[in-house]
Amino acid sequence: MKLNWKNLDETKSFLRLMNMDRQVDKNLSEDRTSKWKSDSGAGISFYYGASLLSSSHIDALGELADEQELLGKYRALLDGEIVNTGEKRRVLHHLTRGQLGKDVVEKGINLRDFYAQENAKVKEFSEKIHTGKIIGSTGKRFDTVVQIGIGGSDLGPRALYLALERIYRPKMQAYFISNVDPDDAALVCSKINLESTLFILVSKSGTTPETLANRNLIIDWMKSARIRGLDPARHFIAVTSKTSPLADSNSVVNSFYIDDNIGGRYSSTSSVGGTLLSLAFGADVFEELLAGAHEADKRSLEKKIRNNAAMLDALIGVYYRNVLGFQTSAVLPYSQALCRFPSHLQQLDMESNGKCVNRFGDRISYSTGPVIFGESGTNGQHSFYQLLHQGTDVVPLQFIGFLKEQSGQKIGIDFSSNQRQLNANLAAQIVAFAKGKKDENLNKAFEGCRPSTLLLARRLDARVLGGLLAHYENKVMFQGFCWNLNSFDQEGVQLGKTLTTALLEGKGDSKALSVYSDILGIV
Amino acid sequence: MKLNWKNLDETKSFLRLMNMDRQVDKNLSEDRTSKWKSDSGAGISFYYGASLLSSSHIDALGELADEQELLGKYRALLDGEIVNTGEKRRVLHHLTRGQLGKDVVEKGINLRDFYAQENAKVKEFSEKIHTGKIIGSTGKRFDTVVQIGIGGSDLGPRALYLALERIYRPKMQAYFISNVDPDDAALVCSKINLESTLFILVSKSGTTPETLANRNLIIDWMKSARIRGLDPARHFIAVTSKTSPLADSNSVVNSFYIDDNIGGRYSSTSSVGGTLLSLAFGADVFEELLAGAHEADKRSLEKKIRNNAAMLDALIGVYYRNVLGFQTSAVLPYSQALCRFPSHLQQLDMESNGKCVNRFGDRISYSTGPVIFGESGTNGQHSFYQLLHQGTDVVPLQFIGFLKEQSGQKIGIDFSSNQRQLNANLAAQIVAFAKGKKDENLNKAFEGCRPSTLLLARRLDARVLGGLLAHYENKVMFQGFCWNLNSFDQEGVQLGKTLTTALLEGKGDSKALSVYSDILGIV
Repeated sequence: MKLNWKNLDETKSFLRLMNMDRQVDKNLSEDRTSKWKSDSGAGISFYYGASLLSSSHIDALGELADEQELLGKYRALLDGEIVNTGEKRRVLHHLTRGQLGKDVVEKGINLRDFYAQENAKVKEFSEKIHTGKIIGSTGKRFDTVVQIGIGGSDLGPRALYLALERIYRPKMQAYFISNVDPDDAALVCSKINLESTLFILVSKSGTTPETLANRNLIIDWMKSARIRGLDPARHFIAVTSKTSPLADSNSVVNSFYIDDNIGGRYSSTSSVGGTLLSLAFGADVFEELLAGAHEADKRSLEKKIRNNAAMLDALIGVYYRNVLGFQTSAVLPYSQALCRFPSHLQQLDMESNGKCVNRFGDRISYSTGPVIFGESGTNGQHSFYQLLHQGTDVVPLQFIGFLKEQSGQKIGIDFSSNQRQLNANLAAQIVAFAKGKKDENLNKAFEGCRPSTLLLARRLDARVLGGLLAHYENKVMFQGFCWNLNSFDQEGVQLGKTLTTALLEGKGDSKALSVYSDILGIV
Repeated sequence: MKLNWKNLDETKSFLRLMNMDRQVDKNLSEDRTSKWKSDSGAGISFYYGASLLSSSHIDALGELADEQELLGKYRALLDGEIVNTGEKRRVLHHLTRGQLGKDVVEKGINLRDFYAQENAKVKEFSEKIHTGKIIGSTGKRFDTVVQIGIGGSDLGPRALYLALERIYRPKMQAYFISNVDPDDAALVCSKINLESTLFILVSKSGTTPETLANRNLIIDWMKSARIRGLDPARHFIAVTSKTSPLADSNSVVNSFYIDDNIGGRYSSTSSVGGTLLSLAFGADVFEELLAGAHEADKRSLEKKIRNNAAMLDALIGVYYRNVLGFQTSAVLPYSQALCRFPSHLQQLDMESNGKCVNRFGDRISYSTGPVIFGESGTNGQHSFYQLLHQGTDVVPLQFIGFLKEQSGQKIGIDFSSNQRQLNANLAAQIVAFAKGKKDENLNKAFEGCRPSTLLLARRLDARVLGGLLAHYENKVMFQGFCWNLNSFDQEGVQLGKTLTTALLEGKGDSKALSVYSDILGIV
């Protein structure tokens, strides 16, 4: 079936949405609060009663979903069509966690088999590390793993590691080096024992300048440590594409492969995230995460918008952005374990949909991806919530909550009263933002009508985390389809790279570049 | 001299600004790039050539500064006038780092003497800890310090500690517990040795629920550890107000005082930040930080707008917000050491100026504080820079850069090539955002005219860090004066607190609250 790719403002359903009444009852009726709930898969529920939408808005969003053929486009992507038109690539991150569409075969290779095989390689390797069958060059067992990567090779895996380090006792302590700033590597080096540390170099192309610069720093560090027998080649592994200069070179213990069908920000469930997570927690934990993501992927195939949480979440975002004109959105996890999750979502969302040209290269005339920011609650409450409650712009909010804490059962202390306090704060905030409060002193008054949604699960374990990750990936994908964008390239990061290279190679012909080069002491 | 507090849209100079030509040459002439530079104090320069302003705009902003009496209001604040009108308090954080106005005397106490005396107490105490004159209850020397606080008692001190831990070898390793989420405390507990750890309880009122809940968790933890002789009272100190229930109670080793004239988000240079930083790095490092902040405070008294970087930065922000209508602003430090600095600024700015009511309690009809977000570069480049370059909304940027890395000289490895690469990226980004790039393929084209400014110093040490901190505090203060806000209260956080308490005490009479209470498993 031929798909119809069209701009948002060419659809009838969007025009209809624009003309609908925008007033919504802010009294949070019981019907809305408890029954406006959708299943996101993996034990996650999506509550949207505190949104600024009426039931007819939801119906209209369902029509928009149909008119923009969101499910058909998702299916095409799953079946391996070239959805990333700019770079002429398939978009296959869903395939890392299971088969949902047709077999995808490229150059004779079934790609589901390829991803599964790399996971199996990772599993075997991590077991050898954990059992001491592979040891460091000076005879020490590996107890520490350092991921060296940037962007998608860093933010997702880092957020996932931090989310799980309380609930699963790490088999290896993990650190991360991403920034080309030498102070980043220096701090990690000061904390680790080189003899028992395994470094993962993560770069699809094998040429990412930050990652190569950090590899060189680590090798210098190893040499300057003057430890007899310490051999860098026996302390590095690579996660890269088969054709990259890093793959199977003599300078690494082992290589695990990814391919061009998986973009950096969508690579957490490939060996980019899998190697680190399997080494840190064991391959079984990573498999649980994949299972949770796969459940959410399946759920995203539901036809009815009220049963498809990722699609509904996406369309509510489109309504806020394009009908109500809100420019930002905050993600507020009531879980310290998700402290870096907003940074991952910031990349996932803003790099995918921060674009002003549609998938055919035409300038569009409506707003696309919003600015995404967030911090864990209750910390944020003591920080920027002032603006969220009483600022001059409305910021739609997404809360993430859990019934139980992660740590309780493991350490034998009763943490439940703190968890109760945490969730009381969350409940109070949802109601405060929605209902507001009258006061004659306007400084103490709250307008209310500040919309929020809630993603809720029992406890943050690997399965739930995988489900959350996939929920957001699928949400961003659906929004990209609505806006008629290619959410899978990132041409906006190229110009900076080009100018940096020109400057470092002394080829910058721009006067401005050379002035800033002087100011910044680049000789 | 009587000050004239008026709304931004009542000023003639703002009307004039609104009617001025908005077109600016985007070619970054050498004059603009190298000479549009202002001194921020403490060795920091503010470059604003890549902004969207002409020289006449700057002149007009100078007139606005005069008409809104920014300097007169700053002087009144320094002299101890009740500038925080809502809470009827003085605003004295500048006094923690030096005397710039008249003596401020309250109930017979000279408050400069009070703050200086608390710093002296902190200095003496931290020396006793470092030399082992005060030791833990089981006879071990303290080598670890944990700050327990939230909001302003956490974000500022944490950002400052992380900024300095590479350049000064910590005398004590520091950790932070802020969130009421029990998983926050659990992770820190798993990393420390209770016998050699000193906990700082930071709460001005002594009643912050998150902080008290975390104190109780730590005490439970200590008890359950069953270590003979381990006495919680000998492992806690307090930073609080003199009248708080925490002060000089039998449950702490020592107390250090703050008062109501210093708001949480402005308290980093009081004993709230000073205790932690003096314990971690030594009192001399904290004194350097205060000296840098004081230099920037002095510089903020400069009359001419082009010589007063904090004021200029503030007014450029007002121009973007109220004339050009931009809703967000990004802070992008090219230094991994400043990785948490954007979170501190997010609080500082959004909690101070995220308000829709002026200092007299009247609703205002113009935009105030923007959404602030940011990450360290080069990490951000591989993440949300796509939207900054090619998204549909313009986000004004503020870069922070340094000529030298922190770590080089200490560890004897040549890091300069990585620092060179870091700064080449920074130079390239400034130019790329300003000038853009034409391309027939619009997907690869960059519109340019995406404005930025740059704060630049030689190396990030304690003095420069103090200067940066004060630059932003003063910038936010000047913007608050422009918008006629009270930047020093935070009524917007109260409703959530009230509803939380009601819910926990079973007094919530709202149906919605009880539904969410059920959903979130609060029994």
